[in-house]
Amino acid sequence: MQYVQIAELEIDSAVLEDYKAAVTEQIETAIREEPGVLVLYAVADKNNPTRITVFEIYADLGAYQTHLETSHFTKYKATVKNMVKSLKLVQMVPLALGAKAR
Amino acid sequence: MQYVQIAELEIDSAVLEDYKAAVTEQIETAIREEPGVLVLYAVADKNNPTRITVFEIYADLGAYQTHLETSHFTKYKATVKNMVKSLKLVQMVPLALGAKAR
Repeated sequence: MQYVQIAELEIDSAVLEDYKAAVTEQIETAIREEPGVLVLYAVADKNNPTRITVFEIYADLGAYQTHLETSHFTKYKATVKNMVKSLKLVQMVPLALGAKAR
Repeated sequence: MQYVQIAELEIDSAVLEDYKAAVTEQIETAIREEPGVLVLYAVADKNNPTRITVFEIYADLGAYQTHLETSHFTKYKATVKNMVKSLKLVQMVPLALGAKAR
């Protein structure tokens, strides 16, 4: 069963551009290198740009656990440690995952 | 430019199953029939299942506006009118939209 999670982050505005670079690099690497990482959509609230949401779909729980131990993810966590003011992870149950074929 | 939005809904628990059926039908129809509807991911908070999030990506703002006027969307809105206790729409700026090719 797919493992779906939403991460809600508040970033220190002074380092917002650094955070964006770090999360983009982490996402691109994870999608390219990890077969079980299916979707990582990072977006910023247009009216509150320090509020970041990441919508995450993994092939299963094991793929998520594997992701947490990769070198690119542990590097990302270390890089952003002092940029993230708050982090909330919410596990989700999929109802309808509709997407165009690509 | 792609138009990205997150909808956060609180559903009346007494009609949660009816809501799920209505949103699933709406999503499947929109993805199938509307070229500009790219992603509609509806998920429920595992620990608070009446809290629904829909992550939405449209080809552009025009595609979103077209979606709002389709018969399947207006039917959905009428069907769920008394099921939805609250609705918050948050426009998002994409940072990294990473997904596996399918």
